[in-house]
Amino acid sequence: MHDTLAEVSAILGRSKEALSQFQAILEPTIEQAADDHERLYWHHIYEEEEHRFDRLAALLPKLEEALADEAFLSRENGDFLRLLQDISLEKFGLHNFLEHLDLSLFHYKGTEHEPAIAALRDMTAADYQQMKSALETLNGALDVPVSFAAATPTDEKEEQKEYLKLAQYAATPAASASRPAIGTKRQLTVGSLKNK
Amino acid sequence: MHDTLAEVSAILGRSKEALSQFQAILEPTIEQAADDHERLYWHHIYEEEEHRFDRLAALLPKLEEALADEAFLSRENGDFLRLLQDISLEKFGLHNFLEHLDLSLFHYKGTEHEPAIAALRDMTAADYQQMKSALETLNGALDVPVSFAAATPTDEKEEQKEYLKLAQYAATPAASASRPAIGTKRQLTVGSLKNK
Repeated sequence: MHDTLAEVSAILGRSKEALSQFQAILEPTIEQAADDHERLYWHHIYEEEEHRFDRLAALLPKLEEALADEAFLSRENGDFLRLLQDISLEKFGLHNFLEHLDLSLFHYKGTEHEPAIAALRDMTAADYQQMKSALETLNGALDVPVSFAAATPTDEKEEQKEYLKLAQYAATPAASASRPAIGTKRQLTVGSLKNK
Repeated sequence: MHDTLAEVSAILGRSKEALSQFQAILEPTIEQAADDHERLYWHHIYEEEEHRFDRLAALLPKLEEALADEAFLSRENGDFLRLLQDISLEKFGLHNFLEHLDLSLFHYKGTEHEPAIAALRDMTAADYQQMKSALETLNGALDVPVSFAAATPTDEKEEQKEYLKLAQYAATPAASASRPAIGTKRQLTVGSLKNK
């Protein structure tokens, strides 16, 4: 259990770095937005990632404290169960980050920022799969009714309508490891609105 | 304190209804999306609101339980402080919903759905202001170091760069009460991409 939590801590730590890199790319895009729609669009993604940064900044020290205290990691400890709920929220945060990166790739394709964003995207896709495995391991090890219901994306909900899901974010690691085919649809990006 | 929490419960209850109405409007838009970019865009907003629905479905019964037990509402009660943290997360959720509605208005302007979305938008803008006041009241009444740091949007962060903020979501109720001027820029919407 300790090793699995250490893995979760490493994933969230590098995702906090990654989102900061992404924010730095977004800042000039917000500043130079051509119209209110484009500005709101990038502002909104930026703000959600900033919110995630604030949450991770609060969570990571608690996680480190927990890792340093073997007695903390007990199913009898309510604080530990709350920590697991916070972690399950960040599983969803990773999924959202993946979609933010994919959305931004439609805009930044062919620009100097594409390789950096693509690298963040691939790292995040792998980390999301690792995070899912880690939570399954913790669930199995604890065997307690910690509710992770609010940490399952639309893509992975069995009871949800199929046409609302996207294949590249579905449950299987193989599918989510590949980026959506953006192809040559450069003219269809949100960013291209500013040229109209 | 009890009345303020009852107010919070009412706000979150009607926002849960509101987001379901919004999801119903989005579903055919996702199904009929003209390309991968548009599908990912609406899917992403839909999924974030669905996540909010799941969180509210877990939080609201806890809030009702707390309201029925006067002894629960004590600064000495760790569970109560955690409940307040969950509520502060939903303050951010309301802010995000407001931005989702504004983003969607660029797409649905001039359609049969505009009046419904505009009504949800205006209700949410007013509720967000009421939620901020409620949290300030609770903070003042409790005088405990409950961290609400991770519940402040970019728009309201004093230390944040000005060009990353949007005036219509800034701290003053008067400004945020009005929708952004969408005007006649119909041709600049994300939705209009499918006609290109």
